[in-house]
Amino acid sequence: MRKQGGRRTETPFRARNEKPARQNAVKDPRKDTHKPGARTDSRAFRRPSPELAGLYGYHAVREALGNPNRESLDLFTTAAAAEKLAAEIAASGVPLHIVDGEALSARLGAEAVHQGVFLEARPLPALDVSEIENRSGLVLALDQITDPHNVGAILRTAAAFAADAVIVTERNAPEFSGVLAKTASGGLEHVPLVEVVNLARALDRLGDAGYLRVGLDSEGPESLEHTTLSRPVALVLGAEGKGLRRLTREKCDVLARLDMPGAIKSLNVSNACAVALALTRAKLAE
Amino acid sequence: MRKQGGRRTETPFRARNEKPARQNAVKDPRKDTHKPGARTDSRAFRRPSPELAGLYGYHAVREALGNPNRESLDLFTTAAAAEKLAAEIAASGVPLHIVDGEALSARLGAEAVHQGVFLEARPLPALDVSEIENRSGLVLALDQITDPHNVGAILRTAAAFAADAVIVTERNAPEFSGVLAKTASGGLEHVPLVEVVNLARALDRLGDAGYLRVGLDSEGPESLEHTTLSRPVALVLGAEGKGLRRLTREKCDVLARLDMPGAIKSLNVSNACAVALALTRAKLAE
Repeated sequence: MRKQGGRRTETPFRARNEKPARQNAVKDPRKDTHKPGARTDSRAFRRPSPELAGLYGYHAVREALGNPNRESLDLFTTAAAAEKLAAEIAASGVPLHIVDGEALSARLGAEAVHQGVFLEARPLPALDVSEIENRSGLVLALDQITDPHNVGAILRTAAAFAADAVIVTERNAPEFSGVLAKTASGGLEHVPLVEVVNLARALDRLGDAGYLRVGLDSEGPESLEHTTLSRPVALVLGAEGKGLRRLTREKCDVLARLDMPGAIKSLNVSNACAVALALTRAKLAE
Repeated sequence: MRKQGGRRTETPFRARNEKPARQNAVKDPRKDTHKPGARTDSRAFRRPSPELAGLYGYHAVREALGNPNRESLDLFTTAAAAEKLAAEIAASGVPLHIVDGEALSARLGAEAVHQGVFLEARPLPALDVSEIENRSGLVLALDQITDPHNVGAILRTAAAFAADAVIVTERNAPEFSGVLAKTASGGLEHVPLVEVVNLARALDRLGDAGYLRVGLDSEGPESLEHTTLSRPVALVLGAEGKGLRRLTREKCDVLARLDMPGAIKSLNVSNACAVALALTRAKLAE
């Protein structure tokens, strides 16, 4: 995060010497393309940028407001949503702007299920592999899973199962905001993200740190249920259809299948992840 | 399915005495609103109707073509997709129409991930509770889960875990085609659907048939992991946020929680279903 001075100077469309008064309706040049009639409060939306995480949806925003590691900038909500989130808004001290739902849909697109809530915030700092705290003894590593719905659903499940971290590759990771954050339903605020350039190298480092690296692979020699597991464990998942890359597979200590008795043999990757987490947790508790 | 004569006479926009020759480009009045330039082959798309199941997506259509219970009417694919599905198309004998991808997007909407494949078929016959075959000894009952993505994902997982049936309420069920079928990724063709007017009554009948009815409920007195299960079992799931209705809950023999150790306590309903199926199957195998 490049900070050039006061935190407000980062707003990309504010002139350097303009007074950062919240009452100024700052003009976003892109707004002219928005749906006419969309009304905003005293502050225009910031332009999307890598320095900005746009979070929408009730649970995603509520958890973000309560996350001490998340720098919240401005919150835009409908009057009804502001009431529902009153306690969180007060506790966080985030500037609140009451807008109508159409203004949010105009900003976020008609497909976005924003539930009347949109938070402009800073992206969360990504951790290094060495910074993973071994608490539950369970981390996930995602090998080129790019679909934001899937990664969001995985983050939600990872948060529910108290995973210590989710490792993703920088190059293929979706944006950790928007639809991913909405699908994660707050999970994004609870599971540390580790973005790595090279997953194979990260798996090396996990191995050095004593992690058992278990790759989920439909061609694995044994089912996960019958695989001996030990803590700490790293579950490594590949994208649907593609599976794990060769080098990723080679870095795993063991490859395991998820055996399915039915006619459809493959699960959606987020469901496969949920099943793997449930089985792993049950086995580690044995 | 109201059949009035030959199977082709059902096409709603074909005049009664018109020769049902496939080479006739039948004009769909709705097509004028479609994207200009969208080109179709020799046959226009049928108008959406309750008598028609529009299925798209590679896996959804491939499994439908292979399902002897599914009456396929016309298949529209890109040339590339036709090649990929050549064996299934030949085996099914379905009339094939080569179209371009834009024609499919114009028919299905830009959001539909059709993968160059669209099948017009008849809906599958829905079973009665009494017709459920007890093979794996595991059925799902969904209490007012309406989101087609969620129901589709649940059907895929149910197919993977060889569930004997999925019971849904008629009134709230989404359409068993389109985005649901795409998300189910073929699962729709493998899990018998039971549509009931009254879920409580259906649970009574399952009880009479010896099923242990297990309601998943975050307020349940015991975790599913520590619940004694017996076969046949019916897992009863409610919608996210709403949970099970009172009457549904009362019809269950036992209520069980899914215990989550993490900060986020609730899973997406399809992930909760996957976890419940995995735990149930593991427990029944003990």
